[in-house]
Amino acid sequence: MADNETPVRFGIIGCAEIARKMSRAINLSPNSTLYAIASRSIEKAKNFAIKNSLLSDSIKLYGNYIELLNDPFVDAVYMPLPTSFHLHWAILAAEKKKHLLLEKPTALNVTQLDKIIEACERNGVQFMDASMWYHHPRTAKMKEFISDPKLFGQVKAIHSSSSYSPGPEFLENNIRVKPDLDALGALGDAGWYCIGAILWAMNQNLPTTVTALPTVARNSAGVILTCSASLYWEKDETVATFYCSFVSHETMDLRVYGSNGTFYLYDFIIPMDENSASFSFTSGAKFLDLHIGWNVKPQAVEVNSKLPQEASMIQEFSRLVKAIEVSKSKPESKWPYSSRVTQLVLDAVNKSIDLGFQPVHM
Amino acid sequence: MADNETPVRFGIIGCAEIARKMSRAINLSPNSTLYAIASRSIEKAKNFAIKNSLLSDSIKLYGNYIELLNDPFVDAVYMPLPTSFHLHWAILAAEKKKHLLLEKPTALNVTQLDKIIEACERNGVQFMDASMWYHHPRTAKMKEFISDPKLFGQVKAIHSSSSYSPGPEFLENNIRVKPDLDALGALGDAGWYCIGAILWAMNQNLPTTVTALPTVARNSAGVILTCSASLYWEKDETVATFYCSFVSHETMDLRVYGSNGTFYLYDFIIPMDENSASFSFTSGAKFLDLHIGWNVKPQAVEVNSKLPQEASMIQEFSRLVKAIEVSKSKPESKWPYSSRVTQLVLDAVNKSIDLGFQPVHM
Repeated sequence: MADNETPVRFGIIGCAEIARKMSRAINLSPNSTLYAIASRSIEKAKNFAIKNSLLSDSIKLYGNYIELLNDPFVDAVYMPLPTSFHLHWAILAAEKKKHLLLEKPTALNVTQLDKIIEACERNGVQFMDASMWYHHPRTAKMKEFISDPKLFGQVKAIHSSSSYSPGPEFLENNIRVKPDLDALGALGDAGWYCIGAILWAMNQNLPTTVTALPTVARNSAGVILTCSASLYWEKDETVATFYCSFVSHETMDLRVYGSNGTFYLYDFIIPMDENSASFSFTSGAKFLDLHIGWNVKPQAVEVNSKLPQEASMIQEFSRLVKAIEVSKSKPESKWPYSSRVTQLVLDAVNKSIDLGFQPVHM
Repeated sequence: MADNETPVRFGIIGCAEIARKMSRAINLSPNSTLYAIASRSIEKAKNFAIKNSLLSDSIKLYGNYIELLNDPFVDAVYMPLPTSFHLHWAILAAEKKKHLLLEKPTALNVTQLDKIIEACERNGVQFMDASMWYHHPRTAKMKEFISDPKLFGQVKAIHSSSSYSPGPEFLENNIRVKPDLDALGALGDAGWYCIGAILWAMNQNLPTTVTALPTVARNSAGVILTCSASLYWEKDETVATFYCSFVSHETMDLRVYGSNGTFYLYDFIIPMDENSASFSFTSGAKFLDLHIGWNVKPQAVEVNSKLPQEASMIQEFSRLVKAIEVSKSKPESKWPYSSRVTQLVLDAVNKSIDLGFQPVHM
């Protein structure tokens, strides 16, 4: 792969539902190609390939993960395994010199994540978690707005939510609510995005305290189905709240309150339309005389994109891989950093719940 | 006033800025008329009348409050006095058999409010706090949506905000931040609406616990400029959060998350347009195959109104006054009830702050 023309060859480890979307993204991104698929059996890998029209001579199928990691032609792996398996397989991937695109939540806790990140650093491979929304051009546009001292000012408050309601069967039996597979439940799955969005708005600065709100619902195995928390930055007097749930109607809210402006969107994780996404902002709003109306209304900003956000993520990841492999650049540290602060806050929410909703100082 | 044709004659006690809007509303409402204005001096009353084109032979001006209350032709008073003065003047108004439309926050605490409500009950006069938004037809439309078990389902979470940024001079010198006048600061002024909206969504059911978030900012006199809190209903596993502030850009958010639907609006307290207001809802949202979009988008519901919401409030208040005076009905108890639960939660937020952000059980 020591030239800039060859696309980055991806191996997918684990045929989760989300891998369907990602295999499409790998093929849509101009600098990557889907090279191999590994599942727990060759039948599973084949079925996945057939179901997603991926079966061809150019795609290798593996009946176990280690064979894919031993394939010298695999440059990078996308790993949508249950969280409990990340520590083992992510470290092994790094040791096999595979660049690592890891599904969220990245690990069961930050101690595990640090081991994964450290393995990537030691082996000179790129680490990135597969939070797609960071890579949508809309996100960059929102950052521009939020960074404008006149239009937006200082961040004062943030509210985010991530919820969906997959039904009673899911709540007891899905991987995402199994204590031995995805023990973090709705906090790890849906809450990951809320925490990430809040930290994104705060330029990845850790809050002073994290306090879970006394509103945790769990399934019969004790896995979180709903939770809420508040984050507080003492120096800036900024407060953030989030709500994540597997028992509430579909939401993906991000609302940011600044001193001079505000913005909101309702689909920050998955845009309602693939090629055109929007957010709305208000700046300099005042009441009309007699307080019988507003001088300005929220304005929608439309952002078009040629690629779906997940393909933009693959493209960015592959660009970094190429920079490392061809130009001998160092891996980009901002991606493991943002994963790490997200995981740190997630751990703090969990700790606060365990402490009976006491504040956890960061 | 013992007939249905004569309009209810209002006296305004206190020439606050908001009284300008309300004097217009009293004249717009078809069953009321502005009859008298009282200020601390006759010059202040006159200046107010001139400034608002109200000076005429048919409007009486008083240089003190008691003369207005002694005027037998005054049926009802609208009282926008600083909160510290409510206890004294509201009770006196009730004893003078004046129906009482009282500005929010209704009192410094629920003990005071109970005395006011009790005085109104004893004297058979209607009590209502002047929260206008309850009376907009949009609010009724939202209630319809939220009450639909199929479209909306059970309320799972609520977020509300009320903020504006009137500048540094206001933060030290305005009535709303003076400990001897409006000691409740942003919590009493802006927070009143958030708490009211949350309780409105929960059919005025009190939460199990109220917990202030560790994010209180105060001015040099110790009056709250920003605060946040969470409310929790144990039985329903419902959580609500709110943010109120005098140092953040203008917001009036209400976002309600149900099991089957959600709705939001950004101007619930004062609609952006006087005669046409909207809210947006989503119901039955699912992801498209491959999770590359949504099957439905938020739908805006437009609600037109002939009268501004504050005139609708006056109309409803006057209708109740007429029902009492002409048809010998009992005062409508739902209005003092909703003020009382709002004040109770407001007190609990204050108490939680004083306890170092510990939960307060209701």
